[in-house]
Amino acid sequence: MTELEQMGKNAKAAARVLASAGARKNEALLAMANALETREEVILAANALDLAAAKENGMSESLLDRLTLNHARVQGMAQGIRAVAAQNDPVGTVVGGTVRPNGLKIEQVRVPLGVIGIIYEARPNVTADAAALCLKAGNAVILRGGREAIRSNQAVAETMRAAAEQTGLPKDCVQLVQNTDRSSAVEMMQLTEYLDVLIPRGGKGLIQSVVQNSRVPVIETGSGNCHVYVDDSADLEMAANIIYNAKTSRPSVCNAIETVLVHQEVAEKALPVIKKRLDEKQVELRGCERTRAILGGSVVPAVEEDWATEYLDYILAVKVVDSLDEAIEHIATYSSGHSEAIITKSYENAQKFTAQVDSAAVYVNASTRFTDGGEFGLGAEIGISTQKLHARGPMGVNELTSTKFIISGSGQIR
Amino acid sequence: MTELEQMGKNAKAAARVLASAGARKNEALLAMANALETREEVILAANALDLAAAKENGMSESLLDRLTLNHARVQGMAQGIRAVAAQNDPVGTVVGGTVRPNGLKIEQVRVPLGVIGIIYEARPNVTADAAALCLKAGNAVILRGGREAIRSNQAVAETMRAAAEQTGLPKDCVQLVQNTDRSSAVEMMQLTEYLDVLIPRGGKGLIQSVVQNSRVPVIETGSGNCHVYVDDSADLEMAANIIYNAKTSRPSVCNAIETVLVHQEVAEKALPVIKKRLDEKQVELRGCERTRAILGGSVVPAVEEDWATEYLDYILAVKVVDSLDEAIEHIATYSSGHSEAIITKSYENAQKFTAQVDSAAVYVNASTRFTDGGEFGLGAEIGISTQKLHARGPMGVNELTSTKFIISGSGQIR
Repeated sequence: MTELEQMGKNAKAAARVLASAGARKNEALLAMANALETREEVILAANALDLAAAKENGMSESLLDRLTLNHARVQGMAQGIRAVAAQNDPVGTVVGGTVRPNGLKIEQVRVPLGVIGIIYEARPNVTADAAALCLKAGNAVILRGGREAIRSNQAVAETMRAAAEQTGLPKDCVQLVQNTDRSSAVEMMQLTEYLDVLIPRGGKGLIQSVVQNSRVPVIETGSGNCHVYVDDSADLEMAANIIYNAKTSRPSVCNAIETVLVHQEVAEKALPVIKKRLDEKQVELRGCERTRAILGGSVVPAVEEDWATEYLDYILAVKVVDSLDEAIEHIATYSSGHSEAIITKSYENAQKFTAQVDSAAVYVNASTRFTDGGEFGLGAEIGISTQKLHARGPMGVNELTSTKFIISGSGQIR
Repeated sequence: MTELEQMGKNAKAAARVLASAGARKNEALLAMANALETREEVILAANALDLAAAKENGMSESLLDRLTLNHARVQGMAQGIRAVAAQNDPVGTVVGGTVRPNGLKIEQVRVPLGVIGIIYEARPNVTADAAALCLKAGNAVILRGGREAIRSNQAVAETMRAAAEQTGLPKDCVQLVQNTDRSSAVEMMQLTEYLDVLIPRGGKGLIQSVVQNSRVPVIETGSGNCHVYVDDSADLEMAANIIYNAKTSRPSVCNAIETVLVHQEVAEKALPVIKKRLDEKQVELRGCERTRAILGGSVVPAVEEDWATEYLDYILAVKVVDSLDEAIEHIATYSSGHSEAIITKSYENAQKFTAQVDSAAVYVNASTRFTDGGEFGLGAEIGISTQKLHARGPMGVNELTSTKFIISGSGQIR
């Protein structure tokens, strides 16, 4: 039995206890939050070792920032866990039911998924977030973080495991994979006997690798080639405002936009207004020919690849379209199915856009940046699903559950 | 572009039309049902060719029976489609929603999955059933049936495609793969660009092969190593009655039981009563030592493998257990997670069994044979999911949908 198989076995045993742990899950979560605060010094010392090694290896400033823990971030982890504890427990919720003509009473109730694997990169706060969400929904979790954060992750995970044990839950409800070589990620993808689902969190490369190679069912998260379409009836100030927000408030996240489509009837008026706002942040525009004819030579000519690219940067592709239909067609061709918005005053066009655009979140007159568990009122989120099976859009604790049917009879046979 | 890629492209185009086809889907379904009746002669002639070839190849009687169509079975297909048409359209149903403090109105609505692939074996009625369910939920379907039924499947599929086209829907909402070599199944499992989900229907070998090799998300169906546990407080006549029904009413189906667990306190009384009923159908018993000590030499000694085997035959494994806990532990170890039942008069034990047994359907005092879409009131079913992601238990039209969020704003930015 390999180390990971042993962890899988331990997780399965822990999951059976968690499935009916009820309020003890919240006691454990609150103990974990307190323990993280109490053990802040130990955690920061471990993080300092990770940071020193990362600097020696020449890690970039932005990655160093993600790796860094400090007093505020440890407080943030603890507060995040308390917020998860404050949510309703999904386990046992009756989601449907009926009494059949033969007297059988059928209830469909939420149950934990079982054992969840998470593969993630260099942010140690994911360790606390993901473990807390999985535990709240009654699942055991096997965490496999990146090499760069291993000491920080160990300190956080050990703190949480000890707190779980103190409240009477098995410490193996949270386990951290110690081997951070590629081989451990590959083995997790084959661990069908123990893992009920695998969730990758991180960059596109990581997610695609897991989606393509895993035999364990995967929930694909995070890839976002998002669009704003400016309809011919749009309020142009609103359009510019939303585009500015959706592109520049945080360009590196998946719900930021990458392409703006503008109806030809308003292009001449709208494009200069939009460009003026984006110039405040020196956003590079890559435009189609008609866009360049209106905005002039400062706009880079867009090539086919631009429509398909998730820049995650201060770059925006711009295309003038003949019609709403062309906009919908463009989105169907190039979108990753995350979030799209129409800016319009037309009831008919709003209805058509929301009906025909097939993405996880479809907006009328609002920024795509709202696609987020917190903004949707779900509390914390484990990620934003861009697949259609099981969960689509921001995933909270409910999406970390399955259901089962409980049938109460009095001797019925068929 | 391969033939299957072209079919995938056609299906995606058809799916976009189907997503907002509304009541035309029902018109198409009713036209399909009528057309199957009208074209009965053509369908039976094609089926006769399949049957002749199968007999020449020495197909077994039971498989020949599954392959056979006749007047009653064609009528059955047509009636099945009408029953699907009579169900509520899931598309557009609002499953949740909220208004956020910033005024954003968020609705979560059901949408089709998109394009569904079905890989199945020698029963031509699956062609009609599966296509009708997929269409009702707004999905295009690519059907890949077995070689033995290809002429029958072609006749059924062509009839349905022509009927769809007559009612103004694209005929490619239903497509049948003409190549029935293994290679076409393998290619479908890699068709991630076009297929949103792949559902295998058939024997264990087929399902395991798809689960292990598919890169397209799979819904695993059908494997059923089901249990009845006879508690120390059980009504023994009820127990014998339910066991007899669950084992013998149709041994070849996934919701039939394979193992009976009996509490030691009642084993001496219960086992002879149970055996007497099962003797009516000459059920072979394979028992643990304690079972054999009570029932005598006619019981075959059970080996480890018996607890894990889905016999699908007039064979039943029997084990005496010390306690409810041992029964729950045995089920956790050997069950495929399909359906399990407890026979008990104890409220406490019923609660414990339904809470701790982690299977798609958990029964108190009723036969596991009820795990079925029709019996659960879902209308037709596409299969019984034994996985935990997306759907668990009998899957009706709702389970062939996803959801999307529609967010209505008035200029909100974040």
